[in-house]
Amino acid sequence: MSHNSFGHLFRVTTWGESHGPALGCVVDGCPPGIALTPADIQAFLDKRRPGQGKFVTQRQEPDEVRILSGVFEDEATGGPVTTGTPISLMIENVDQRSRDYSEIAHTFRPGHADFAYLSKYGVRDYRGGGRSSARETAARVAAGAVARKVLGEGIVIRAALVQIGPIPIDRSRWDWDETLNNGFWSPDAGIVPAWEAHLETVRKAGSSTGAIIEVEATGVPAGWGAPIYGKLDAEIAAALMSINAAKGVEIGEGFAAAALSGEDNADEMRMGNDGPTFLSNHAGGVLGGISTSQPIVARVAFKPTSSILTPRRSVDDTGADIEMRTKGRHDPCVGIRAAPVVEAMLACVLADAMLRHRGQTGERGPVWTIGSNPIHAR
Amino acid sequence: MSHNSFGHLFRVTTWGESHGPALGCVVDGCPPGIALTPADIQAFLDKRRPGQGKFVTQRQEPDEVRILSGVFEDEATGGPVTTGTPISLMIENVDQRSRDYSEIAHTFRPGHADFAYLSKYGVRDYRGGGRSSARETAARVAAGAVARKVLGEGIVIRAALVQIGPIPIDRSRWDWDETLNNGFWSPDAGIVPAWEAHLETVRKAGSSTGAIIEVEATGVPAGWGAPIYGKLDAEIAAALMSINAAKGVEIGEGFAAAALSGEDNADEMRMGNDGPTFLSNHAGGVLGGISTSQPIVARVAFKPTSSILTPRRSVDDTGADIEMRTKGRHDPCVGIRAAPVVEAMLACVLADAMLRHRGQTGERGPVWTIGSNPIHAR
Amino acid sequence: MSHNSFGHLFRVTTWGESHGPALGCVVDGCPPGIALTPADIQAFLDKRRPGQGKFVTQRQEPDEVRILSGVFEDEATGGPVTTGTPISLMIENVDQRSRDYSEIAHTFRPGHADFAYLSKYGVRDYRGGGRSSARETAARVAAGAVARKVLGEGIVIRAALVQIGPIPIDRSRWDWDETLNNGFWSPDAGIVPAWEAHLETVRKAGSSTGAIIEVEATGVPAGWGAPIYGKLDAEIAAALMSINAAKGVEIGEGFAAAALSGEDNADEMRMGNDGPTFLSNHAGGVLGGISTSQPIVARVAFKPTSSILTPRRSVDDTGADIEMRTKGRHDPCVGIRAAPVVEAMLACVLADAMLRHRGQTGERGPVWTIGSNPIHAR
Amino acid sequence: MSHNSFGHLFRVTTWGESHGPALGCVVDGCPPGIALTPADIQAFLDKRRPGQGKFVTQRQEPDEVRILSGVFEDEATGGPVTTGTPISLMIENVDQRSRDYSEIAHTFRPGHADFAYLSKYGVRDYRGGGRSSARETAARVAAGAVARKVLGEGIVIRAALVQIGPIPIDRSRWDWDETLNNGFWSPDAGIVPAWEAHLETVRKAGSSTGAIIEVEATGVPAGWGAPIYGKLDAEIAAALMSINAAKGVEIGEGFAAAALSGEDNADEMRMGNDGPTFLSNHAGGVLGGISTSQPIVARVAFKPTSSILTPRRSVDDTGADIEMRTKGRHDPCVGIRAAPVVEAMLACVLADAMLRHRGQTGERGPVWTIGSNPIHAR
Repeated sequence: MSHNSFGHLFRVTTWGESHGPALGCVVDGCPPGIALTPADIQAFLDKRRPGQGKFVTQRQEPDEVRILSGVFEDEATGGPVTTGTPISLMIENVDQRSRDYSEIAHTFRPGHADFAYLSKYGVRDYRGGGRSSARETAARVAAGAVARKVLGEGIVIRAALVQIGPIPIDRSRWDWDETLNNGFWSPDAGIVPAWEAHLETVRKAGSSTGAIIEVEATGVPAGWGAPIYGKLDAEIAAALMSINAAKGVEIGEGFAAAALSGEDNADEMRMGNDGPTFLSNHAGGVLGGISTSQPIVARVAFKPTSSILTPRRSVDDTGADIEMRTKGRHDPCVGIRAAPVVEAMLACVLADAMLRHRGQTGERGPVWTIGSNPIHAR
Repeated sequence: MSHNSFGHLFRVTTWGESHGPALGCVVDGCPPGIALTPADIQAFLDKRRPGQGKFVTQRQEPDEVRILSGVFEDEATGGPVTTGTPISLMIENVDQRSRDYSEIAHTFRPGHADFAYLSKYGVRDYRGGGRSSARETAARVAAGAVARKVLGEGIVIRAALVQIGPIPIDRSRWDWDETLNNGFWSPDAGIVPAWEAHLETVRKAGSSTGAIIEVEATGVPAGWGAPIYGKLDAEIAAALMSINAAKGVEIGEGFAAAALSGEDNADEMRMGNDGPTFLSNHAGGVLGGISTSQPIVARVAFKPTSSILTPRRSVDDTGADIEMRTKGRHDPCVGIRAAPVVEAMLACVLADAMLRHRGQTGERGPVWTIGSNPIHAR
Repeated sequence: MSHNSFGHLFRVTTWGESHGPALGCVVDGCPPGIALTPADIQAFLDKRRPGQGKFVTQRQEPDEVRILSGVFEDEATGGPVTTGTPISLMIENVDQRSRDYSEIAHTFRPGHADFAYLSKYGVRDYRGGGRSSARETAARVAAGAVARKVLGEGIVIRAALVQIGPIPIDRSRWDWDETLNNGFWSPDAGIVPAWEAHLETVRKAGSSTGAIIEVEATGVPAGWGAPIYGKLDAEIAAALMSINAAKGVEIGEGFAAAALSGEDNADEMRMGNDGPTFLSNHAGGVLGGISTSQPIVARVAFKPTSSILTPRRSVDDTGADIEMRTKGRHDPCVGIRAAPVVEAMLACVLADAMLRHRGQTGERGPVWTIGSNPIHAR
Repeated sequence: MSHNSFGHLFRVTTWGESHGPALGCVVDGCPPGIALTPADIQAFLDKRRPGQGKFVTQRQEPDEVRILSGVFEDEATGGPVTTGTPISLMIENVDQRSRDYSEIAHTFRPGHADFAYLSKYGVRDYRGGGRSSARETAARVAAGAVARKVLGEGIVIRAALVQIGPIPIDRSRWDWDETLNNGFWSPDAGIVPAWEAHLETVRKAGSSTGAIIEVEATGVPAGWGAPIYGKLDAEIAAALMSINAAKGVEIGEGFAAAALSGEDNADEMRMGNDGPTFLSNHAGGVLGGISTSQPIVARVAFKPTSSILTPRRSVDDTGADIEMRTKGRHDPCVGIRAAPVVEAMLACVLADAMLRHRGQTGERGPVWTIGSNPIHAR
């Protein structure tokens, strides 16, 4: 990860400000010959799009993606496939509502990056938060759609909201299908009324609330990732922590592991038909920084939206102490729309890990034996 | 972070297995002219060294560091200073207790990286865990000692254990000085008896337990870090998650932020004598991925030691189901010795951020104004 | 350099195919606060543009650049300045002449990348050479214009054609001003008639010819670059060799140095008013991979255009042996238009070296003394 | 390439000064399961070793390599194989002849990096040139031996001296076997007497002379390398230019290509039994930055040794103008010993290209067809 790029072989660079003419990304190192249409990407952008519910911002952005390079008609199918050259994706900003920025141009919104950006750069694009706006995550989602194509259909990546504010889901009711039904990415239909009530309270109070998202990738073979600083969980941690408003990341049991005993935390093994199998997944699918073939499970915590209507103390650029409220269109809970972003970041990390693994160890990975049976990691 | 290296301008590469002849690191990109002696590094290695208490492994390693390159006598002082070329540090493995590895050579220890490494590489150095051993962290600590020299004395980095197993400290009794007194890096002297009792129980039961470490860096100026994938908190997350047994990382309020309201979480500001000041530090010193001049605060959760005496189910490489206990010298709580490692990783991340920041923006960073007063970010 | 990116702190990623909708680049890591308008970039694109002479391709591309991100109005001046965030530059392809590609779609043009791309990727965008087209260099020139802004006016970078085909210039007539007058970037006005005659012969014969370009950067302070693999001359070599059709790169005396004696090649020194000065510049401004404050001098050789009207033997994708001529709009000498590209690549390498140097050693670099006078490298 | 590392997946970091206790390298990303003994590496170090002839330095260094990590006994063969973890190689400096450095400690040797290092770092290890000494190339040779193992026996890399001073070989007498016979790496036995006479003259005059080395890699399949900034020839150029005293690099026809016509330079193709074949190799095995399956051919020019006995003008650190001769053990022609280094650098670049290629495109690369025959790039 460096400035505005991440990944090593599957490498994503994003650019663009909230209220500039456009935003986008360049996906470099994508394998060739993969069918890719704008619709493949648009499907995921549509999931992330604002303007889709009562508790999300009303900014109307079609978020229509254009593929500017890196695909070409395949001789065999006639459809567009990746060529192995950089894929440039662009989304134009349409709804740059004309407004008066004079207030935020001269103040530091508490909890926002205004002061930090000015401290770093001495100048900042204050319109809609500029580069620090969550609009940048549209580019991540677009890149993630390409990453999913690289990973193929055998690897399924899906995210769920498991907590809004202080209200967690009831895990005994977990149903992945439900995440696509309720507008909250909740795997627990039963919790939705409580969340709605909480959000309504928050909204009326001019306040905001946080959330926790859980993401899972199934179908990842054993062997992806690398010691020591290229650990798969370290790369996941960086990728998820880089999302706007993220404040914590955990893998498997995560922080709860600290309170467990060694017996309870270690995942026991038994011999299965296709090699060793695990009897539990406290590790979240990663041991020693390398995937184990179990589902990869991670969680990320989002802080409450910093833009709130409740007046807060701050200063302006004359040095005066002020009270300020952040007007405008803001989600009371940024976590709600973050699920597609979390999925996308995990997809990108895994696509890169896949390419790096086969780079170092070859297409099928090493061959070793259990008894007399050869085991292919992939 | 890539494989066995991390950092961009201040770049650390580590190497070595638990039971090989030596381990070490190469620190590349260190600024020149910094006084550096083996003693500067040894001081931190001694803090990390095993064999120092009842609840840590009895392996006797002097962990004596040699500086093989990158320093030279300074004309002015006569003492050794960094020359700007790569600093190669080596620690010989002395106590490679001769033993019979036939058991672990053919089994997969639950919770260990044995299966993952074999899946990835088809071969593994099983002696003491090979590359996945916590001995690798000695190299991190050595690199961290160099990083502290780069940062200078104005930046203070210190870690504390805030939880062992299910027992957290009482934060009202926090005393940094105490962390150096009690052998547990605890800032709360009062909790020590409870921890000792818990560890004694764990040890007798042939079990193990986890821990949570908190680390703080004070004196970091505003402006370090970078959007979007080079966020300071994303780099901290990767660095801490890359430590052996780490399963979760959080910044500032971390996971607790999910349950807070926007008013409670945002750090308000008031004008101080030297520029804006913050009235709280829920953000943990980072906003938008960039430091704010507040203390950087992070926590990392460690799982319980995987090597336990309690029999666990596993398989061996003939495909037979087995029960196994992990004999040998093992800490019941790996977290206890991780504090110097956590400090070292944060030091390395900050040294790299410092160099990158001045690379992009110049020595003093940009100049901007509050009213008519010029503000230097650094 | 990796795939489609180069640079470390000042990092350029380019994208786009010859006949796709657009091409462009993302410049990441640019220092903030630098005045930058589209006109600053357009000036250099206009120099590179085809359609400007009898011996260059007649493709009519306005090559109009748009700045999509990374600049914002400066409070003080009202003009746009860089914000430190990624600068996305886009140039739309306008003159994608509709034509029949069926011939080149199924053949491998000798000297072209057709076979190599297909071997690597199994698919290729054959329209106008796709990604391997010299049109990609427009993005380099755009990035180079930003790099010049970073370097400031004290560093002057300029290129000259010193040979076309077998005809070198007469160096005794060298006049930098002349390079902007004659349409050939020749510093020797006297050679132009001979070059014109040669090119006319070549053109009539349906042939093509090569060229050598020399580039110079003055004003570079001592100390930029780094040992061992980050040597300034190694980075220049990679940057120049990456330009389409480049086959050789040399620094200072270059290949001629092999035939010199040690006395003749070493640049002697004498004390000047501002520190040591050199009495000659056989080294081309770089010793040990680090700049010496002398002008940086490099040369790059370009092969003759591969697209020629003379029939050449090849094969098609049915496996048949064929004779083929490459029709279409092609420069008989690609080197003629490469001068702005060579300048741009050197500018980008130097901007990156500047930022990395001050990252490692601070704004002014180290201070050392000659006698009692402190010397600042910068 | 960055500071002291190069390569992306197969990544080499070197460290060490000429007169420090040791030098070495860390090879990260090596594929697992490759047989590797110290003898495999020593064989190449012995080829490079000084003290082997009349015209090379008499410094007596055994250059004995130790493998400190990254290999382990293979179950099947009992011999050591790579484990996929970093391979740390160390060579102790034995013959650090005790001498008086007071002269060079305070002067700037013309043609040396003394002034450049001091300008960059403000401090320098002047003993034997410190980091800028050609002793560093021993670490490159060690890494190159590992790279050859990665590439396998199907890829043969060999270098030859083709010019010493102004005296080129007669290419009509080229015999690769001869390069191992005559102590000069000359493929032309007939030129040796002339070179010996030239070197004797140079030596007696207290002078030095340059050289040109040609290197070839056969067996490289089509498809390695990458557009645009990851071009195989760009990476070769950087790798070779990074060698001490290198001043020029060319691929295939190189600078001579500038004077060729398009017909003469383009390599025609005809259908062979296993796919398209080329009728010539002006391109040097690389088109569009990607290998074509033809031999890769590059040349690198070395300047004459800067350390000469003939007095040269310089300055000292009091600011006085001086005359200086460089006493001590110095080769009159550094190029003579550079052949193993040139081979090693090419081996490392190719090993990295191989891993990156299969990372992006899979083990066998893409499959495409000529007529109805599927073509595998590898």
